[in-house]
Amino acid sequence: MRVAIVGLGGIGASVGLALQHSALECAVLGYDVNPDAAREALQAGAVDQLAERLAECADAALILLATPPLAIPEVFQQLAPHLRPETVLTDVVSVKLPVLRWAAQYLPYPSRFVGGHPIAGTEHHGIRAARADLFQGAPWALTPTEQTDPDALQRVQAFVQTLRAVPLTMDAAQHDHEFALLSFAPHALAFSLVALHRENPTQLQGGGSWRSATRVAQSDPALWAQLMALNREPTRRWLEQLIERLQQLADALQQDDPDAIQQRLAPHTGDTTQ
Amino acid sequence: MRVAIVGLGGIGASVGLALQHSALECAVLGYDVNPDAAREALQAGAVDQLAERLAECADAALILLATPPLAIPEVFQQLAPHLRPETVLTDVVSVKLPVLRWAAQYLPYPSRFVGGHPIAGTEHHGIRAARADLFQGAPWALTPTEQTDPDALQRVQAFVQTLRAVPLTMDAAQHDHEFALLSFAPHALAFSLVALHRENPTQLQGGGSWRSATRVAQSDPALWAQLMALNREPTRRWLEQLIERLQQLADALQQDDPDAIQQRLAPHTGDTTQ
Repeated sequence: MRVAIVGLGGIGASVGLALQHSALECAVLGYDVNPDAAREALQAGAVDQLAERLAECADAALILLATPPLAIPEVFQQLAPHLRPETVLTDVVSVKLPVLRWAAQYLPYPSRFVGGHPIAGTEHHGIRAARADLFQGAPWALTPTEQTDPDALQRVQAFVQTLRAVPLTMDAAQHDHEFALLSFAPHALAFSLVALHRENPTQLQGGGSWRSATRVAQSDPALWAQLMALNREPTRRWLEQLIERLQQLADALQQDDPDAIQQRLAPHTGDTTQ
Repeated sequence: MRVAIVGLGGIGASVGLALQHSALECAVLGYDVNPDAAREALQAGAVDQLAERLAECADAALILLATPPLAIPEVFQQLAPHLRPETVLTDVVSVKLPVLRWAAQYLPYPSRFVGGHPIAGTEHHGIRAARADLFQGAPWALTPTEQTDPDALQRVQAFVQTLRAVPLTMDAAQHDHEFALLSFAPHALAFSLVALHRENPTQLQGGGSWRSATRVAQSDPALWAQLMALNREPTRRWLEQLIERLQQLADALQQDDPDAIQQRLAPHTGDTTQ
């Protein structure tokens, strides 16, 4: 089986490494617009061979796209003229509705595209973030539509199981809504805390709670701005709800009401403030 | 040297364990209102001996208070009639101005009290959170006032160095202001995220960013309500600033402006969203 990985950053290279450690007999072709990233992935053993041009990836049995999200429309368009009807495509972007729209718009056989998103990864990026066990036991959301070919879905499910991930089929809109709470909101909070601290330097160093709260602010803000713009309504709605809760807490603090403060921190806990 | 530890939870018991591992020749007397917590600390080797009544702790050379914050006024009042002028007292509460006020109000020799706060600890509590190396290399803020006896400060500095912590002398008001940003705001955000998720359960499980962002919400909300009420103005002001930033991000999302989104996430980064 011939697998192509387009985009050899932390996630793409981890897929390659996981394939090399799997029982699947496959030849892995890799492509990255950045020749250094491509060479590093080859040297790390994440791919068996490098494609010089993106079009060479088109005749793989399965193509996994692991590029930055905004590169996907261009990748689809470059692959489109060369794709065969039986080739399966999937991606790893953490917002799914826009990718499905691009697939419908640019791919000749959009029924063979299955949106995917591994709930794994770190604040690091590039080949140094690549790990063969990155997906072990991790949920991997798949978001087929009514138009998706069941055979394509089944192939992508089997593929992510090969990577030791746990495929989880769900609606793309629900995925984007839920992930905006589970990941986009935490990233927004982490970036906001770090920005606030940068404008208000402290003599004290933060302890464990500060480090946990700000860890993901080491992620690439340009990438996260892209992702949030692609998932802007769900992200905005969760932020508005968080703002409302924080305002209620700030009001309870102003009123010096310990019971109300505790209710804002942990609704429905008992009154044990005394 | 005779040391007394009042309150044998995670921090108090860790101080005891660190003393047992230190070069300081001392006898450690422990007290906790909860006899089970006291017995567990004795069994874990955190203290050499248990006091049956709080007053027995009064004739130690150094008394460390590691009770919940709101217990401190009562502890001061119970110790007060028995204290000798040379005894040094210190505490570990993460907000310092109220403790200094209580010391001035209730202690017969407030110049012998030095407010303290180890920047260490976890979301866990009780004896199971106790570790002999909890303070190793950790900053330990000390907040002397103009009334503080320099000898008392010097003794507490030496004591926390014995625990392998790094004493850091600073103004109490500045401590409370800075720590409200470094720890109180992260706790408020973590509790708020968890409360929002509890009312909006998801099919997806959160990944690493969710776990980091919500870790400290496993802390005791009643304790944090107490602490925030004691440090309410600084906490409220930082929350208002965070709310303003989050609102600007929500507005940038609504306007679908990727550059503005990135500026909100990471002010002063370049425009690299394309």
